[in-house]
Amino acid sequence: MDVGDYIQQQARGFFDDLKEWLVIPSISADPGHHHDVRASAEWLAAHLRATGFPEVEIWETGSEDSPGLPAVFACWPAADPQAPTVCVYGHHDVQPAEPLGEWDSPPFEPAERDGQLLARGASDDKGQVMVHSLGIRACLAVAGTAAPPVTIKLLIEGEEESGSPHFADLLRDRAGRLACDVIVVSDTTMWAADVPSMCTGMRGVVAAEITLRGPDTDLHSGSFGGGVPNPLHAMAALLAGLHDKDSRVALPGFYDRVVALTRQERDLLARLPYDEKLWLADAGHSQAAAGEAGFTTLERIWARPTAEINGMWGGHTGPGGKTIVPREAHAKVSFRLVADQEPGEVAAALREYVTASTPPGIDAEVAFEGPGVRPCSSPVTSPAVQAGRRAMERAFGREVLFTGEGGSGPEADLAEVLAAPLVFVAVGLDSDRIHAPNEKVEMDLLLKGAEAAAHLWRELAAVGRAGLAGDDRSPANR
Amino acid sequence: MDVGDYIQQQARGFFDDLKEWLVIPSISADPGHHHDVRASAEWLAAHLRATGFPEVEIWETGSEDSPGLPAVFACWPAADPQAPTVCVYGHHDVQPAEPLGEWDSPPFEPAERDGQLLARGASDDKGQVMVHSLGIRACLAVAGTAAPPVTIKLLIEGEEESGSPHFADLLRDRAGRLACDVIVVSDTTMWAADVPSMCTGMRGVVAAEITLRGPDTDLHSGSFGGGVPNPLHAMAALLAGLHDKDSRVALPGFYDRVVALTRQERDLLARLPYDEKLWLADAGHSQAAAGEAGFTTLERIWARPTAEINGMWGGHTGPGGKTIVPREAHAKVSFRLVADQEPGEVAAALREYVTASTPPGIDAEVAFEGPGVRPCSSPVTSPAVQAGRRAMERAFGREVLFTGEGGSGPEADLAEVLAAPLVFVAVGLDSDRIHAPNEKVEMDLLLKGAEAAAHLWRELAAVGRAGLAGDDRSPANR
Repeated sequence: MDVGDYIQQQARGFFDDLKEWLVIPSISADPGHHHDVRASAEWLAAHLRATGFPEVEIWETGSEDSPGLPAVFACWPAADPQAPTVCVYGHHDVQPAEPLGEWDSPPFEPAERDGQLLARGASDDKGQVMVHSLGIRACLAVAGTAAPPVTIKLLIEGEEESGSPHFADLLRDRAGRLACDVIVVSDTTMWAADVPSMCTGMRGVVAAEITLRGPDTDLHSGSFGGGVPNPLHAMAALLAGLHDKDSRVALPGFYDRVVALTRQERDLLARLPYDEKLWLADAGHSQAAAGEAGFTTLERIWARPTAEINGMWGGHTGPGGKTIVPREAHAKVSFRLVADQEPGEVAAALREYVTASTPPGIDAEVAFEGPGVRPCSSPVTSPAVQAGRRAMERAFGREVLFTGEGGSGPEADLAEVLAAPLVFVAVGLDSDRIHAPNEKVEMDLLLKGAEAAAHLWRELAAVGRAGLAGDDRSPANR
Repeated sequence: MDVGDYIQQQARGFFDDLKEWLVIPSISADPGHHHDVRASAEWLAAHLRATGFPEVEIWETGSEDSPGLPAVFACWPAADPQAPTVCVYGHHDVQPAEPLGEWDSPPFEPAERDGQLLARGASDDKGQVMVHSLGIRACLAVAGTAAPPVTIKLLIEGEEESGSPHFADLLRDRAGRLACDVIVVSDTTMWAADVPSMCTGMRGVVAAEITLRGPDTDLHSGSFGGGVPNPLHAMAALLAGLHDKDSRVALPGFYDRVVALTRQERDLLARLPYDEKLWLADAGHSQAAAGEAGFTTLERIWARPTAEINGMWGGHTGPGGKTIVPREAHAKVSFRLVADQEPGEVAAALREYVTASTPPGIDAEVAFEGPGVRPCSSPVTSPAVQAGRRAMERAFGREVLFTGEGGSGPEADLAEVLAAPLVFVAVGLDSDRIHAPNEKVEMDLLLKGAEAAAHLWRELAAVGRAGLAGDDRSPANR
């Protein structure tokens, strides 16, 4: 019996289990549902014990001052002590379900319809976590062994939809237990159901609010206009100067650490069946693509850093005219970062730029939204990614392409703290309506995902610890 | 007996009359006080009849659809039918008195204290209107004649503090009755009590709201940032481009009609005892002056046109970060204009600039706040201004200098519709707290003003109609 047959046999039980889990409204952002997040962790722990994991633990997070929600950890050691260790990341909390009125069926009463399973969390991320319990059972059943070919650790977080506030601390506290040779992340999407793909990286972010202050009160522009600096002028000039004429970010040194796309990566991205008209329609019916000169749209949003003005305000913003020189101007800006940019360096460059761009008579202040998020990358040439690709190709029976993600979760922390390469193996789709009403998952893609997971352990075992360690993220390995 | 002696003799009665008028709260902006504006017009009409004006009329303004508040018209023909005709402009409505708690004595209970008369309207503009009734009586008394040396028309508006919404129509409807050779405006300020001065012009204004639209919804900047045009970027670039590196307004053709300051005008402005530290303190404690390269602060605010951003907003303006590409960006901008700029031409130039500056994928809209206000000028070399200066110098016994005003009232309409040169003869001070609590007027300056007014009619008669007509605002006469 092969992996695919086993999975088809187990499918009914797999979906019944998943639906049982999806009933639990584990909404981490809503304190009224925190007991459900705990119930979700209990359910998963019991399920993993039943699957056969010899070690299953619920890990509390946070501290007395800042209580957190539990993660679930499980470990199934390989028979061979020399086999690589894999750490699988996912999360068991879900987004809020509002607006409830827009759901065709209640968000926590899972419904099957036309090959789709509809429920909050079906795709993001409970369905994709469950892929691994089915995958490991298939792997063992087909091989007829009692232990997997690699040591499999699962770390299933309970606060991802709330910004993972305690996740980095958890990783550092438990780094010993989590030690691994490769990290598998199952919380992203593929290009399309018929275009299987893997994510090659996620952009980081630095966000800040800039305040410029001039006179200590709004001034009448008839009396003073043209004689004193106007903070809104200064802000407009400062913001306009964030980009050069090629729409490149003009902060000094901004691109110094940016890892350039290779010819191979660009070729692979170009093979995706991208339709700019459809993409623009998704982009709020934007009328035209725009961005850094010399790059395609997909390169721009996945593999190139950006600066965006997210908001700005100052002076008179109500109805009618009011001819003033306003006292203050404000802007919120954010930068999307790619490997190997450092959020702290970009923050420092922004601070210097603001200081240098502020004219005499204006005071400037820059306040950052936390320390920022590091970008992470999972290069096509990495041995771990190649193993993942082979597993995916066996499951899907067709070539696997590569995509990227414009934003980040806690993946950069994982790679940083555990010092291991990332592989994104996931079967969600952009059309899954995650974070929106009527979230769904394609049931046959979950089964394909389980098949890929089953193959993945054998592929990673074949690469071996030394082979996986060869991916040291040095330019030579990109 | 000379003019000064006569005026000193009449001073007590003059101030008692003025105080009677100041009791009437003729607040044009407050519908609850519109009956007081009417009572104020009645009071003034009676006062002018008592002064000796043979023709005194109350002129209703507005229409059934847009009812207005009354102006007062009076005419005292010269004995000599060849004598010039002067039209004196002022207003009898006042600003609201709020915040009432900040007045040391009630705003409509005039109080004399240390040579100052405190009441709403004492300086702006009832005191300055009354200057003319005392001035004309002094002129006649000293000459011993029954008719003035010029035909004197008074036009005292009742809606100036509400933006003079019906004034231009009134001027056009009554242009025949108002026909004149020179317009005297008594509604401005001097540099200081010991630095008598005359205003040489007022800046006009064009105000607009610019809207830039991109996607039809805010987009997640992780998913789309760097791939679609951001309306806030476009707005920042558009606004930054309104000025060049010398802080000159960069709209094409903006300066084409600007009448350059003459060497004489610059020299006269430079003789004002200007203290930049004091000026900056008045300017909301601005830390530095700024503006168009090559001009002094006073030149910049009085005699040079500007572009100001009065407000801007778009995207996320609340607390915390929100990494979006926003759907819209908005800005309110205004331009201060100087002679001979045309509001309509500047509006057209702005519209073209916005169109040319808007990148592909963004829609732009420009909405103007009405047709704008024309600038007006009263050049130092004009025969009417020279006559006014001689009258002022006789009254004050010292050299009279020149200033400007950064903003405008209805003066440009007067000059335009009546096609006559403007002379600004006024004795208000910037320290009079007009539009603020504790408005006051310097009582001795009102008497000096009456003295100047008494001399003015004789000076203008001496110039004669032909002489006044020589000021045709052509470059040769500047």
